[in-house]
Amino acid sequence: MKLASLKHGRDGRLIVVSRDLSHYVEVAGIAATMQAALDDWQATAPQLRAVSDELNAGQRSDAQAFDPAACAAPLPRAYQWVDGSAYLNHVELVRKARNAEMPPSFYTDPLMYQGGSDDMLGARDPITIRDEAWGTDLEAEVAVITDDVAIGTSAADAAGHIRLVMLVNDVSLRNLIPNELGKGFGFVLSKPASAFSPVAVTPDELEGAWRDNRLHLPLRVWVNGERFGEPNAGEEMTFSHADLIAHLARTRKLGAGSIVGSGTISNKDRSRGFCCLAELRMIETIEHGQPSTPFLRHGDTVKIEMLDIAGKSIFGSIQQSVQLIK
Amino acid sequence: MKLASLKHGRDGRLIVVSRDLSHYVEVAGIAATMQAALDDWQATAPQLRAVSDELNAGQRSDAQAFDPAACAAPLPRAYQWVDGSAYLNHVELVRKARNAEMPPSFYTDPLMYQGGSDDMLGARDPITIRDEAWGTDLEAEVAVITDDVAIGTSAADAAGHIRLVMLVNDVSLRNLIPNELGKGFGFVLSKPASAFSPVAVTPDELEGAWRDNRLHLPLRVWVNGERFGEPNAGEEMTFSHADLIAHLARTRKLGAGSIVGSGTISNKDRSRGFCCLAELRMIETIEHGQPSTPFLRHGDTVKIEMLDIAGKSIFGSIQQSVQLIK
Repeated sequence: MKLASLKHGRDGRLIVVSRDLSHYVEVAGIAATMQAALDDWQATAPQLRAVSDELNAGQRSDAQAFDPAACAAPLPRAYQWVDGSAYLNHVELVRKARNAEMPPSFYTDPLMYQGGSDDMLGARDPITIRDEAWGTDLEAEVAVITDDVAIGTSAADAAGHIRLVMLVNDVSLRNLIPNELGKGFGFVLSKPASAFSPVAVTPDELEGAWRDNRLHLPLRVWVNGERFGEPNAGEEMTFSHADLIAHLARTRKLGAGSIVGSGTISNKDRSRGFCCLAELRMIETIEHGQPSTPFLRHGDTVKIEMLDIAGKSIFGSIQQSVQLIK
Repeated sequence: MKLASLKHGRDGRLIVVSRDLSHYVEVAGIAATMQAALDDWQATAPQLRAVSDELNAGQRSDAQAFDPAACAAPLPRAYQWVDGSAYLNHVELVRKARNAEMPPSFYTDPLMYQGGSDDMLGARDPITIRDEAWGTDLEAEVAVITDDVAIGTSAADAAGHIRLVMLVNDVSLRNLIPNELGKGFGFVLSKPASAFSPVAVTPDELEGAWRDNRLHLPLRVWVNGERFGEPNAGEEMTFSHADLIAHLARTRKLGAGSIVGSGTISNKDRSRGFCCLAELRMIETIEHGQPSTPFLRHGDTVKIEMLDIAGKSIFGSIQQSVQLIK
């Protein structure tokens, strides 16, 4: 099934969306918000699924036209957002750009960071920045939402706690990163609010593309209307979504509604393009001595979308413009 | 006024607690949860204050005996937990212990990390660890809770967004920190759930001790029943609570209910003792070549409390024991 949150107050209003993203049904009688559904997933999921089945069968007279622009993030604010770096090709390139070495342990010990989750952007919300010199970049990723995960949960068991899958634009302020990471405590200022796809879907909606707890489809990215990349999100993902959850659970439990991101999707095959500007800029630097692609500026646009094998949008698209404010 | 959350479901039940911590009143008619109160603070605060005034005047026939052990964290789960390192004496000592240098920028650019906020411990909840070799440490701190803070808010304006003040035990797994920080993305595994004082108070409850957005009182710490430290939380705080909030707001807004911590309280005067084991271990290493104080082990206890100038507990005490699980 496919779920979304209509913009409404601080936590949105939960809806069930049809598989083809054309219609939706309100489900306040089952759960008022996405968080409420996740808090009691064993009870709410079967009821939501029944609504979804009826909606997809054209049996809901209360179905309304679905508008992705009316959506908040699936979780407009969340209790946890942790992002991995599961595509080591990206990690290698971005570290090269910072002249930082790639430790061998990165191939066995997942790199993750704790992000802010008090402000999650809807798919059509602007990227608000105060200074273009901060070097605004997109990072197109896949993220999962868990229910409660006990401390010490293995990767094999973590798989069963992946309740929803969605897309993310993990916005990065590249020029603030070297100083901030140099301080040693991770990202704080350099990772402002991330944006999420209009719709989050259960893994079964992904059919054969969801294998080994990875999503084996290209993630398509456009910048200012031009195709920028379509690397495959499954092929070169060193750590699966279940691996990332199990890593987190080594020392602590995860609360329902925890969002765990994959990190920027990246393939070695450069003809597939990129999911962030930093990678292209790094390759330009390697080839020409300096980058020629600028970071995002006021008015620039980003689009991120994933299509199923029939060519239909799975999650709806993230479409954001950059807005410079005083 | 003084507020707390009784253990109840995932988000607790908001109560108003008397100044002397002897009684409380339920206030579900004003706001069901602490988060709900913070979401609409302009409307809820005057109503909660009226209840508080009546309770302190002995005019509430519905007052019940207050038991700190019945409390969850003031926010049992939160949308944001960011912790500073505002006491540079602590930063210097802990970095010495890791053989890490102290950059001069640390005196002007606050060091902060984004913590997990999906699981906040109540004041009497155990510290649950899976391995004693991880090197469990306490970190006694002061934290504030904000309402909504706009992007770009100055320190002067941030002061007005400090709605509540409380104590924290920011539990650290010291032996996991070098590897994790070495990876460059900050704390993930090495900072499991933090515990909070039973009660959160508005700054006016702190009377003259709240000056320059700092809390000028000693924070008292006991380990296994023995006095461990009582450094003053105001004197050597390089960055005020308002400075820390303004730092965060440079690139992003903060949602209501954001918790911002001070970092481990630390004074240069060693006779005042310590708020974490790592500092004492560092001094032992400097003086004797190696540390003699062990990290916390199964069954060890920690108590953290702050008294007002009349010697009365302001926030109630954090009292935790370490529990080793399989």
